[in-house]
Formats: sequence, C-alpha cells, structure tokens
Amino acid sequence: MRLVRYGEVGAEKPGLIDDENHLRDLSGEIPDIAGDVLSRQGLDRLRALDVRSLPKIDPNQRLGAPVAGTRNFLAVGRNYREHAAETGSDVPEEPLLFNKAVSSMAGPRDDIPYPPGASEVDWEVELAVVIGERCYNVDEDKVLDFVAGYCLCNDVSERQWQKNRGGQWIKGKSAPGFGPLGPWLVTRDAISDPANLDLWLSVNGERRQEGTTADMIFTVPQILSYASRFFALEPGDVVTTGTPSGVAAGMKPPQWLKAGDIVTLGSPHLGEQRQTILG
Amino acid sequence: MRLVRYGEVGAEKPGLIDDENHLRDLSGEIPDIAGDVLSRQGLDRLRALDVRSLPKIDPNQRLGAPVAGTRNFLAVGRNYREHAAETGSDVPEEPLLFNKAVSSMAGPRDDIPYPPGASEVDWEVELAVVIGERCYNVDEDKVLDFVAGYCLCNDVSERQWQKNRGGQWIKGKSAPGFGPLGPWLVTRDAISDPANLDLWLSVNGERRQEGTTADMIFTVPQILSYASRFFALEPGDVVTTGTPSGVAAGMKPPQWLKAGDIVTLGSPHLGEQRQTILG
Repeated sequence: MRLVRYGEVGAEKPGLIDDENHLRDLSGEIPDIAGDVLSRQGLDRLRALDVRSLPKIDPNQRLGAPVAGTRNFLAVGRNYREHAAETGSDVPEEPLLFNKAVSSMAGPRDDIPYPPGASEVDWEVELAVVIGERCYNVDEDKVLDFVAGYCLCNDVSERQWQKNRGGQWIKGKSAPGFGPLGPWLVTRDAISDPANLDLWLSVNGERRQEGTTADMIFTVPQILSYASRFFALEPGDVVTTGTPSGVAAGMKPPQWLKAGDIVTLGSPHLGEQRQTILG
Repeated sequence: MRLVRYGEVGAEKPGLIDDENHLRDLSGEIPDIAGDVLSRQGLDRLRALDVRSLPKIDPNQRLGAPVAGTRNFLAVGRNYREHAAETGSDVPEEPLLFNKAVSSMAGPRDDIPYPPGASEVDWEVELAVVIGERCYNVDEDKVLDFVAGYCLCNDVSERQWQKNRGGQWIKGKSAPGFGPLGPWLVTRDAISDPANLDLWLSVNGERRQEGTTADMIFTVPQILSYASRFFALEPGDVVTTGTPSGVAAGMKPPQWLKAGDIVTLGSPHLGEQRQTILG
C-alpha cells in the first residue's frame, strides 16, 4: 500500500494511492496515518478494505508528510562510506544517531524557507523508516516486524549550524521545512528489500546524488536494533538512514542551496519530491 | 496554577492542585494538558474557572508527566560552571543543546527500570520549561511570553552511552523512565523569577546536589531565544535547562545508581519527585 496524508498544513486527511494511481480518501476508516493504524493489525485492516469503495479525491492536493504522531525524528550520520569521505570524516564504528526536530517535518513538495542567518544549506536524499509498533531492545532478526513502512526523506542540513555551533547536530538539521517526507508511506510488504533501493537527487535539473541503499554501512535492521538498545521507538517515529555521496559540502567549492533553487529527489519505489528554496 | 495529569500510564486525565492542596479534575473542561490549552489564552481560560466547582479527586493517584503532546524534549548540557568542572569539561561558548527521546518521559514517582546493558546510571536535578506557543526566531526579551510554565526534571543519564558510543548524547539520555517530570506544571505567573529557584537531590537520603538556577550560565530566556534561531519550539515541548554540580560522575570514585536506590529531588516552588531504581 501507498499511504498519504493530503490537504492543507495542519488539516491533512489520510488517504491512499491505488494501483491505478488514484488518490482515495481513508478518513471514513481511520483518523490519521498514526498510532495504532501503523501496527501490523492496523495495516492488515486497511489491506482488507475494498479499495474501490473508497471515495476518489481530486489528485491536485497538497501532500503532507505521510505519517503523523511522530515524537522522534531520528537520523543516522555518515552511513555511506563515500559520503563520510567527501565530508572528510571517518567511518563511524557504531551507528551515529542524531535528532531532527519533529517540527522540521514537511510535505514532499512544500517550499523550504531559507532560515534567517543560514549560510550553508545542503541536501541529502535518504531512505526513511516509519516505526509501526513500540520497539525497545529488539534483536536484528526480529526488528523489521516493528516497521510500518518506508518513505523518501530529504535530510536538509545547515552545515555551519551542524558543525560549528556546539557539538550536537540538531541545530543544523531542524529548521522549518528541513524534513520533507513522502510522497508516500510505502508499507513494508511492498518493499521486497530495503537494502536494494536506488536513490537520486538533482538541483536545478543537475544530478548531484546517485546511490543505492546497498552501500549503507549499517543496514536498516542493524540501525533499528541498535537504537532500540538505548531508547524505545514508538509508532509514527521516523528514522532516516543516511545519505550517499554527492552533497554540496563535498563539492569543491561547495555549491550551497540559495533562494530559487529547485531540489528534486526520488527512488523508483518511494516516489519523488520537489522543493523550491524560498528567499 | 499547578496543573497535573493523574491516572495510569497512557490514560492520564488533566487536573489541578488547588490552594488547599486538593487534587481536582479538569477533564470536564479540557482534553489534556497539551496543545492550545498551554497558550496564554488557554491558560487564562483555566484561570477563570471556579476552582471549587471542579470535582475533588482521591489524592492517592499516580501522577504522569504534567504535559502531553511533546514532540521535542530538549536539554542543555554543562549549563552550570561547577558541573562542567566536575565532569572535566570546558564551559560551552553557546548553549549545548541535545535531545532526550520523548519516550523517556515519565511521572514524578514512577520507578526507573535499570536499562539492560547499562553500567553508569546517573542523576541530574533540573528546572524544565514547558513551551506554550509556537516559538521560532524570538528575541530574548519576548521569549517568556511563549512559555506555559515550569516543572522539575530528573535528567537521568547513562554516562558510558552518553560519552563513548558515537558523539551525540541522545543514546545516554533516553531509556524508558529517564525523564521524570513534575509533579506539577507550575504556570509562569506563579514563578516570579526562574533565575532564582533552589534545586536539591538526594540518593538514599544523602544529599548529593544543592544548587540554584541563579548559577546557570545561560538563562532561560537566553536558552529559548537561542534554540528558536535553529528550529521551531511547539506547544508541549519541554526544555530542561541543565544541572548543578553533585552528580555521580563527579564523585571520586563515582557512585552510580544501582537497583534499589531511591532518588528524591525537589525545589520549593516546583514540588518533589521520588524514584526507585528497579533491578
């Protein structure tokens, strides 16, 4: 299934994209793409619906992030060898976890306001995981059972704020609009192998990133099981899993994003995003 | 006002403690201590209620964290000079911000499960701020308007996980039960000066920490205004503001918490907490 949240900011309704790419409304069935809806049982219930009976909706709708109720927007740093190298960093010995403020979450085509005082705004195409059930101290071979599905993420970053303002990365990862997610939450059953997904990103039509999740240093099960040793992941939490090489910080000289730039990114199974940087 | 959330885990109801220390129910008035209820308008509405008309509740109730809907549990590191010194660290030049997982939030008297694999569990008594309205790029002289109130926080920490597992502190700050908050959310009008609050903490009856928020390096308005330059704080978000000296990590040798230990902490205006470390 491809689940979506459609409508204006703060008033999104749940929906799905059917096999013929029609947007259909789910608000008669569930309150939101959140909480118990994301559990194995909750998703099985959605799968059992007669899709053709769901109201078709005008497809020209804003999409929001395809998940709500998020209380932990977790990210993994330097999880691709060539990306670690392009930023002049060592490969981490354990997954490097950091937080994006949940208030940075945005829809896949929302504009990104250029933050006041920013100077080094960068892009990062990533595979994000959406947690479906509470997950604490879970082994690698069991942990995918706690995953509702996957979505595309642009882990937008301000490099000065990330690196030179006092150690922890949240400062550079969290401005409003810095966490576009979607367009879809693709349920786990629809992704045969999260370790074999192509990812690409372009700026103003020029290809900047091309990678595959096959090159991740720590796999999705390794990351989730590892994180679950330290804290409980909960339904609706989002874990974005690191970016391949090709970010602005790795260019000589770096070509930071500026007002008017258009970022497009995608993955064959996860859909596409498009953001304009506002001035 | 002193606002509380009472009842079993996950089923807490909103309430308040009246001037005669009776617990009274607010669930006929508001859905929870969350969201719009925390705004200036929302709190003014509660203040206008006839307190004596609210149902009195049996006071022998579990209390939960006094705020819900939290999406950012932010914390400040090394914000007291003597605490920075006892951990062998420099005083930060800018507020050192890090995250506790929201899933670590707990009630003020909830037991703290000893996390599997932990070895260096420590305590930290702190003043926490509860955000009342969306706060982004707000100046220091205006930022307290966006604060709903204050509560006591024990920023429980696992020092090995915090320091030796890959850079970012969330790993050591976030196990279930590591974020006791309350007993009360004391609204801003009831705290004449957040920079003049005594804080204390004892372990098994022995006093370990005695401090005052007057010794904070960065004040509450400085911290909030600073954080709001990087991301939007939202209603229900919690910002805990650092701990005075006297933690286990500063003792020679350190006396880490172990199963059966009882931690008590308090502040004259914010109430008291008591936690038992489970085995």
